Amino acid sequence: MSEVVKKAKEAKAASFDLMTVPASVKNRALADMAEALCSNTERILHENGIDVANAMNSGKTGAFIDRLTLNEKRIKDMAEGMKAVESLPDPIGETITMWRRPNGLEIGQRRVPIGVIGIIYEARPNVTADAIALCLKSGNAVILRGGSEAVRSNKAISDILAEAAYNAGIPQGSIQFMEDVSREAAMELMRLNGLIDILIPRGGAGLIKTVMEQASVPVIETGVGNCHIYVDGECDQVMAIDIVINAKTQRPGVCNAAETLLVDKALAHEFLPLVIAELKKKGVSVRGCPETLAIVPNCIPATEEDWYTEYLDLIIAVKVVHGLEQAISHINHYGTKHSEAIITTNYFKARSFQEKIDAAAVYVNASTRFTDGFEFGFGAEIGISTQKMHARGPMGLKELTTIKYVIFGNGQVRG
Amino acid sequence: MSEVVKKAKEAKAASFDLMTVPASVKNRALADMAEALCSNTERILHENGIDVANAMNSGKTGAFIDRLTLNEKRIKDMAEGMKAVESLPDPIGETITMWRRPNGLEIGQRRVPIGVIGIIYEARPNVTADAIALCLKSGNAVILRGGSEAVRSNKAISDILAEAAYNAGIPQGSIQFMEDVSREAAMELMRLNGLIDILIPRGGAGLIKTVMEQASVPVIETGVGNCHIYVDGECDQVMAIDIVINAKTQRPGVCNAAETLLVDKALAHEFLPLVIAELKKKGVSVRGCPETLAIVPNCIPATEEDWYTEYLDLIIAVKVVHGLEQAISHINHYGTKHSEAIITTNYFKARSFQEKIDAAAVYVNASTRFTDGFEFGFGAEIGISTQKMHARGPMGLKELTTIKYVIFGNGQVRG
Repeated sequence: MSEVVKKAKEAKAASFDLMTVPASVKNRALADMAEALCSNTERILHENGIDVANAMNSGKTGAFIDRLTLNEKRIKDMAEGMKAVESLPDPIGETITMWRRPNGLEIGQRRVPIGVIGIIYEARPNVTADAIALCLKSGNAVILRGGSEAVRSNKAISDILAEAAYNAGIPQGSIQFMEDVSREAAMELMRLNGLIDILIPRGGAGLIKTVMEQASVPVIETGVGNCHIYVDGECDQVMAIDIVINAKTQRPGVCNAAETLLVDKALAHEFLPLVIAELKKKGVSVRGCPETLAIVPNCIPATEEDWYTEYLDLIIAVKVVHGLEQAISHINHYGTKHSEAIITTNYFKARSFQEKIDAAAVYVNASTRFTDGFEFGFGAEIGISTQKMHARGPMGLKELTTIKYVIFGNGQVRG
Repeated sequence: MSEVVKKAKEAKAASFDLMTVPASVKNRALADMAEALCSNTERILHENGIDVANAMNSGKTGAFIDRLTLNEKRIKDMAEGMKAVESLPDPIGETITMWRRPNGLEIGQRRVPIGVIGIIYEARPNVTADAIALCLKSGNAVILRGGSEAVRSNKAISDILAEAAYNAGIPQGSIQFMEDVSREAAMELMRLNGLIDILIPRGGAGLIKTVMEQASVPVIETGVGNCHIYVDGECDQVMAIDIVINAKTQRPGVCNAAETLLVDKALAHEFLPLVIAELKKKGVSVRGCPETLAIVPNCIPATEEDWYTEYLDLIIAVKVVHGLEQAISHINHYGTKHSEAIITTNYFKARSFQEKIDAAAVYVNASTRFTDGFEFGFGAEIGISTQKMHARGPMGLKELTTIKYVIFGNGQVRG
């Protein structure tokens, strides 16, 4: 039996016990786990140092090394994250709705854990701690497959947390870490229907695409965000500039940052010089459509590909559109159904935009940067779903649950 | 461009308009479509006659021919089904919950259509009408790929319904039927991420397995039910016999029929002779474990494979278990997470069974046969989900929707 099958079987067996573990035990475990991370800082830093040295030797980029590197502060932040999850309400056990049928059967819809959740991620050790905390609190066993470059860091964190959880009364086997980081083992994991209930890939577009294409286990697609801001002809231009600057520059490397600015033709001559000047002050490179270039000549001409691109960088594509309908068509064609915003003072246009845009989050007069489990008030986030099945938008603890119908009868048979 | 890509593109384009079509238009369309089915009975029967003749010539079984064959009554039933869907409330547009954040943003969770739903099914023409009605009412475009043996019947039904829908104001292209019933075209359909939002296979275990394994589009797994009845040592034996007989024999060919009977050892000597005599009266063949055979010798010995089998026939596997915990372990190991029942008078055992059994529907003192969208009161059913993502158990109109976050701001940017 391969490592992945063995560990998935252990996780599945543990998941049946974990489903009914009360919140008090889960919360004590999370507190102890936070404590264990801090008291094992030296061990984690030692293993992380080896990962970092190896990554440097193999010529990884600065950004990669930065995401991989841990320090005392980052370990403390992971521990704080565990405590934050501890303080959230337990999502399990709620009876969402219950009704009585004419034959006297009572049917209740109850929130229960999913079972075993597989997480496939890249070389970010903090994901290890996050995912373990969220799966545990939602009553799910977890099997983690992290990037090969972080395997020592991830294993140390996972081992420390699994031991602390077990000592606090969490069923043994609930937290599984795959040491085999080969491509073959990942492929095997993606096809373990019956042992793994859902897979959540966390990472770049390439990772997510591979998992979507290769997995037979149900997958939640996360992350890619080609987000737009549409500035309508009727709007508060100062507000529009604030929101465009915030959505593009406050943290350009994340999925809810804006990538394309659409400006109503009615406003373009007045607004474009202002907004582009502000963008350039912030170091943003502008790629414009022909109409944009006619108004603000010193921009780079945009190509068809630009409209599809999630830059994740200080670059923005700018297009002049002929009113609301063209803005909506553009977004529904080129967007990735993540977060879209309209800036307008017109009630009917605001309503129409929210109605017709097909995306997880549709904003009126606010920055797209708010699409986030913490900003939505969920208190935690395992990712942002850009698909329409199961969960859409930020996923917190509730999105790591499923439902079960519990039916109470007194001898009913079907006629 | 292949037929499937062309039709999927048309469906996707139509889906954006269909999302905002009001209930009044959808309901008028459904009424007209019901009418059109009835007034085109002759045309449908003509096409169906050719399908049936072809199926007979190629030596299909009687059960197959029965499922394929239409008559006036069956067409009238399809039309009645359309009218029943017309009378259901529109699931679209409900704001499920809405809250205000400390920064003043108001975040609403709104129920919206999924977009384009692909239905892959076998040679049952009534599925064509059902699926079209449910997708239309829930605001989704649909692309249908039915079994090759019913292609003429399905095409006639689909053409008639699409025309009536269009004339009533439904966007053209909302209802698509694949005339190319080759395996290659089905494979292509299953991998059209971006055009098809979800796939629902309806049919036998083989069809569902193929779709689960081959699709990259998100799939809802439906249908397979290896359902159990556990008769506890403390129970009303008359009720237990009624429920076992109902769950096994009232309609043995469906997924919510019982396949295995588990009997508590404490009761086995008294109960097994009674229940097996009743089962045999109904023509049920019994396959027993060694302990069952020791009590009722004239049964067939059950093999390990029997515990895994969904017979869909007048056959039942019977096993003596040593109490509740062994019953739960058996069900969680061999079951398909569909519908499971305990017959008991003991409050604590009832609670424990509902808590620990991992299935879509967990019954106390009622027949498993109630797992059904109509019996649950949903008024319609597109299938029964046995997976944990998105929907679990009977799927009605709500399960054909997703959510969208609508966010109302007044200039908020992220700090």
